[in-house]
Amino acid sequence: MSEEAQAAFLEELLAEKILFATGVPGVVGRSATFESIVDGFDGLVKKFAKQDRAEIMRFPPVVTRTNFEKSDYLRSFPQLMGSIHTFVGNERDHMDLLKTFEAGEDWSKKLTKTDVVLCPAACYPVYPTLKGIIPDEGRIIDVISYCFRHEPSPDPARMQLFRMHENVCIGKPEKVQAFRDSWLERGLSMFRSVGLEPHSDLANDPFFGRAGKMLAVNQRDQNLKFEILHPITSVEKPTAIASFNYHQDHFGHLFGIHFEDGSDAHTACVGFGLERITLALLKKHGLDTKKWPAEIRKTLDLD
Amino acid sequence: MSEEAQAAFLEELLAEKILFATGVPGVVGRSATFESIVDGFDGLVKKFAKQDRAEIMRFPPVVTRTNFEKSDYLRSFPQLMGSIHTFVGNERDHMDLLKTFEAGEDWSKKLTKTDVVLCPAACYPVYPTLKGIIPDEGRIIDVISYCFRHEPSPDPARMQLFRMHENVCIGKPEKVQAFRDSWLERGLSMFRSVGLEPHSDLANDPFFGRAGKMLAVNQRDQNLKFEILHPITSVEKPTAIASFNYHQDHFGHLFGIHFEDGSDAHTACVGFGLERITLALLKKHGLDTKKWPAEIRKTLDLD
Repeated sequence: MSEEAQAAFLEELLAEKILFATGVPGVVGRSATFESIVDGFDGLVKKFAKQDRAEIMRFPPVVTRTNFEKSDYLRSFPQLMGSIHTFVGNERDHMDLLKTFEAGEDWSKKLTKTDVVLCPAACYPVYPTLKGIIPDEGRIIDVISYCFRHEPSPDPARMQLFRMHENVCIGKPEKVQAFRDSWLERGLSMFRSVGLEPHSDLANDPFFGRAGKMLAVNQRDQNLKFEILHPITSVEKPTAIASFNYHQDHFGHLFGIHFEDGSDAHTACVGFGLERITLALLKKHGLDTKKWPAEIRKTLDLD
Repeated sequence: MSEEAQAAFLEELLAEKILFATGVPGVVGRSATFESIVDGFDGLVKKFAKQDRAEIMRFPPVVTRTNFEKSDYLRSFPQLMGSIHTFVGNERDHMDLLKTFEAGEDWSKKLTKTDVVLCPAACYPVYPTLKGIIPDEGRIIDVISYCFRHEPSPDPARMQLFRMHENVCIGKPEKVQAFRDSWLERGLSMFRSVGLEPHSDLANDPFFGRAGKMLAVNQRDQNLKFEILHPITSVEKPTAIASFNYHQDHFGHLFGIHFEDGSDAHTACVGFGLERITLALLKKHGLDTKKWPAEIRKTLDLD
């Protein structure tokens, strides 16, 4: 039932040329219309980031393999990763690679790992960059990146590659938690300002396997992750369109970010899923943005 | 000599916090200053694209493996590719993966290829999307994407991940060649308008191996590729900051783009390397954009 609604919505988006199919589930092109909504909503996030004097950092859509290995990703979300491999070899090796390809065999086995892995969340490259002492009043960093999660799906709202606009706070526990809580309020009011009916809820990450189930329970028990949800293709199962996470001293400890007194910094991140938000708006207000309420068009700078 | 100049310029950019190191050569974070120059120059490209009524398409930074295999990339540039692999398996397989990792062995060998490969040039996802009949007057598509090329280097202007803004013309041979030639003129005048001293030259792609040398010679003999170059860390060896390519019917034939009468469409693409252009401007006008000539600040919308 839910899959039918997903397929039908995707079909509509493709028919209206708002998205372009590539043949791989969850990998699509975006039209000018789609991008104008992304940019419009993103502008609202930027306004708040500017209020906070967040420092802008932009990273290419990867993390270094060293930092990826340092994080818990391999343990917690191995099924979602995107490790980048290339060809290293001489002309003879190349002939062998082409022979394998031409025989219809799996030539990818002949490749060698590079020093990078696809970025799983926009904030990942920030923590290693901040290694060292940070001021007691903390820092706020603004990042946007394409993220990769290997979860092929017929749901247009579950893309394998999507953009996440995050703000990250690094500081004392109270500051970091207040940052997260205030962004949760900002998020709810931003979504309401563009005609959505969001609600927030406690959440957990999709940890792998049985051990992962324990991690998920712990994460919930400690109120570490909240999401803002909105129906896209299902009212019963609304989609998370933004998330608000308190990591305690996890990343501070892992990547050596600490205060002058040597204590580990705490961190929180708030993330807006730009594709999912755009899809929620298209579902809510219709595929023809020219017919959207004038006030919402204005808020999203669509004129 | 050249490597010293490269290392020195990179060091300056890092010291001024215009770029952020990640520990991997050619993979760096960008600051607000860097991004404001990128956006400013990109705005100039967008103005011309708008004049041409180019259709905007935006793709995530990948191509499908099927389309990658259809292209000649595996044959011509295997050393530059970025194939994306993930973990597929049950909990026992996961234990095995972690054991390999913890033993300090190469756990990447245990991964499985996904359906996507990193995008080598922004225009790659366009051609398969246009499969089918195109009107005789042709189409112009505007794309921007992060691109990956595995060529680790100390040169800040040779990044492994960088953004390319491309316009692609699909149409009759005369139209497509005129498009390329007019963009070459536009490019030269755009660069002059921001105080650079560009020059254009015949060029070839970095084809792999001995067979590749032949391909490069052919490409030059047929005047298929031009570049605009500008000194960044070396006057003797200026860096290509934009390229202008005529593919004849190569992509039209490969991806089934044809006219009503069944003949294959010709294509050309023009690409602006946003990171290289930004580095050329920083080298030319200095690292403090506030001290740049007022007229150039205005042209780049830096105020």
